[in-house]
Amino acid sequence: MPNQDPSDPIVVWHDHAVTRADREQLAGHRGCVVWFTGLSGSGKSTVANAVDRLLFERGVRTYLLDGDNVRHGLNATPQILAERYGDEFARRFGLGFGQQDREENIRRVGAVAKLMCDAGLITLTAFVSPYRSDRDAVRASMDAGDFVEVFVDAPLDVCESRDPKGLYRKARAGEIKDFTGVSAPYEAPESPELQLAAGSATPDELARQVIAHLESAGILS
Amino acid sequence: MPNQDPSDPIVVWHDHAVTRADREQLAGHRGCVVWFTGLSGSGKSTVANAVDRLLFERGVRTYLLDGDNVRHGLNATPQILAERYGDEFARRFGLGFGQQDREENIRRVGAVAKLMCDAGLITLTAFVSPYRSDRDAVRASMDAGDFVEVFVDAPLDVCESRDPKGLYRKARAGEIKDFTGVSAPYEAPESPELQLAAGSATPDELARQVIAHLESAGILS
Repeated sequence: MPNQDPSDPIVVWHDHAVTRADREQLAGHRGCVVWFTGLSGSGKSTVANAVDRLLFERGVRTYLLDGDNVRHGLNATPQILAERYGDEFARRFGLGFGQQDREENIRRVGAVAKLMCDAGLITLTAFVSPYRSDRDAVRASMDAGDFVEVFVDAPLDVCESRDPKGLYRKARAGEIKDFTGVSAPYEAPESPELQLAAGSATPDELARQVIAHLESAGILS
Repeated sequence: MPNQDPSDPIVVWHDHAVTRADREQLAGHRGCVVWFTGLSGSGKSTVANAVDRLLFERGVRTYLLDGDNVRHGLNATPQILAERYGDEFARRFGLGFGQQDREENIRRVGAVAKLMCDAGLITLTAFVSPYRSDRDAVRASMDAGDFVEVFVDAPLDVCESRDPKGLYRKARAGEIKDFTGVSAPYEAPESPELQLAAGSATPDELARQVIAHLESAGILS
């Protein structure tokens, strides 16, 4: 029990705070961030979901951050924010498609992933995140070994032929500008922790490669 | 195993994604957000840390968001962001002390807490969060029952006599402007899920009241 002075019931307990090491011990594995990057249609979300499922079946504590769960909240568009907060607020903090917006999008995701890592979760993120500097800024914000960059490497023509959301077709038609791989660059990682040949293997095979890496890195035992 | 078409190895697996219900079943308890609000010096952080410790000892999955872990990352100041991202970016996204900044501070914390709730964590937050509208916006973003507002209610004179960080002294000396309770309002919750008499009980007693509430609300069994 902490030391308490009855004359001052609010004692600073910071020494008794639950630490990352405590949470990891309870979980039975380390926290980390597994950052999937690659072209639209490369299979990032599919592989990340498959990894999530395999880890879940092992009782591992995980979470998956992707466009689906950040787009309406943390990284909401100006249009969404304007309804509750007004136009000026929405213009400042809402995230559209400009360069600053893109950088801030990845910065916020990185900051949340870092917090989830601190909570002892194996945190999976699935975003195109095409710029090396944006990904490297997230890596630099974290402790060594906590950031596991996974390059989901599928050839552009394979991604474009899959075109799961019809985005390549729109980009080729000029309906989307600055589209990664078509009218904006994709900067492949120079030394990712893991590179997946995502044009020629099943999601299940790729997911097992990720798990094997986490084991060999000592994150999972 | 999911259905796979070997001619197109990247199959949409969204049906197999791990759900919140899955994560909660694995954890053995529900996720939620326990939002501590109150004056500086009321004991928010102390009680939240005590709750965190008690839950940890029961094997519950938790996390605590407070100024210590968001101030340098997710909600970094303009000064911190300027180093890496430049001045224009820092002015737009960095959070200082203006009204918009304060609203965005709480909005981002709320969005992250909601994600952590979805991850099956009992997520504790400890911020003064003096404005009702800011707290209510977080509540409105979440499902019914997920947001547990805890008013850490200690009289101003008690908080000021504790003055753990010397902030009241500075505020009275005019060195801090718009300081909650001195030169800016604190809007107490009108119907919080729980109100703690934090001027007259020990942190341990108050923490046990929070745990009892979580049990009676069916979040913990």
